[in-house]
Amino acid sequence: MSIKVITVSRQFGSGGRTIGHEVAKRLGWDFYDKELVKKIAAESGLAESYILESGEYACSTNSFLFSWAMNSAGGRSGSLPMSDQLFIIQNNIIRDLAEKGNCVIVGRCSDYALRDRDDCLHTYVHADTAFRADRIVRLYGERTDTPEKRLKEKDDKRRAYYRHYTGHNWGAAENFHICLDSGRLGIERCVDIIVDAAKMV
Amino acid sequence: MSIKVITVSRQFGSGGRTIGHEVAKRLGWDFYDKELVKKIAAESGLAESYILESGEYACSTNSFLFSWAMNSAGGRSGSLPMSDQLFIIQNNIIRDLAEKGNCVIVGRCSDYALRDRDDCLHTYVHADTAFRADRIVRLYGERTDTPEKRLKEKDDKRRAYYRHYTGHNWGAAENFHICLDSGRLGIERCVDIIVDAAKMV
Repeated sequence: MSIKVITVSRQFGSGGRTIGHEVAKRLGWDFYDKELVKKIAAESGLAESYILESGEYACSTNSFLFSWAMNSAGGRSGSLPMSDQLFIIQNNIIRDLAEKGNCVIVGRCSDYALRDRDDCLHTYVHADTAFRADRIVRLYGERTDTPEKRLKEKDDKRRAYYRHYTGHNWGAAENFHICLDSGRLGIERCVDIIVDAAKMV
Repeated sequence: MSIKVITVSRQFGSGGRTIGHEVAKRLGWDFYDKELVKKIAAESGLAESYILESGEYACSTNSFLFSWAMNSAGGRSGSLPMSDQLFIIQNNIIRDLAEKGNCVIVGRCSDYALRDRDDCLHTYVHADTAFRADRIVRLYGERTDTPEKRLKEKDDKRRAYYRHYTGHNWGAAENFHICLDSGRLGIERCVDIIVDAAKMV
């Protein structure tokens, strides 16, 4: 079956988002990264900044405000912890986007949300610490003397979040169709490989 | 730096060996799979069948016969467990092959043995159980009513062996430059991706 959706999971600083954006541009498809956060914010009533942050935390605390908002919005899932409710909302939005097709979705366990569809190409982008540390300082303007520490914190959070919600190991090759080391291969080559695979599978 | 060596690690039945062989053919490079076993046999004095089998077992028992053979061959590493001595021998052979360059090496933790070289492309090939089960029955003539059980046994052994000797998780994307799902992408497409990457990196 031909590919209609590409998911891009990535290590922080690996260039996965840039790769996903370029792939979408080359294919003429929609790209969901910040757009996805906006949709989740609209659906949940929560601030985008909170959603951005919570996408990396496996949090088990409850929030009266969120539960109240959820109940007011239709009484759905109101008794679940806030992070679980948010996960359910984002999963539903990701599935709706996939149903429409022709899109690239970055992060948010989208590979897991769409694991049962056979029209998806699930990709994972990673790189060694030196490549990522240079990148977050140079491109993201990270102001830290120890970018390596910042990378480790982000890696640990994403690993815990992914594990908590999917039950799988983060970065395990078997969860993806293509995993690429952007540091070794280069951003452009990663884009080429994913675009070619999407066209030819 | 240009690529002179490609390593192919793979799940049993994924077609990784076939992919490696085809990649070597397309590049006009040497291919080491059974040839590697023959070299290890010649160096260690052990039977090829034993080496083939031990490549998947993390064994900590000692063997008087092997230790005696090792000592007779020059007194090297004679006090180590047999499996450790074999690992050292195969590591040295893999490093010698890499030094000569222009070769594809399948399995035997070759990615780990060559982790410090920057002229290597480390690849990992995997596929889902259904694809691999069909393949081992159809192509390898596996005579079992439960190929899935056979796959799990092999996976478990390779995982334990890799973990034991490298300290890393088997199948973790971060240990490789390219990981591919041969079941989803197809054998030919995997060959294309690896050959292109080897030429263009």
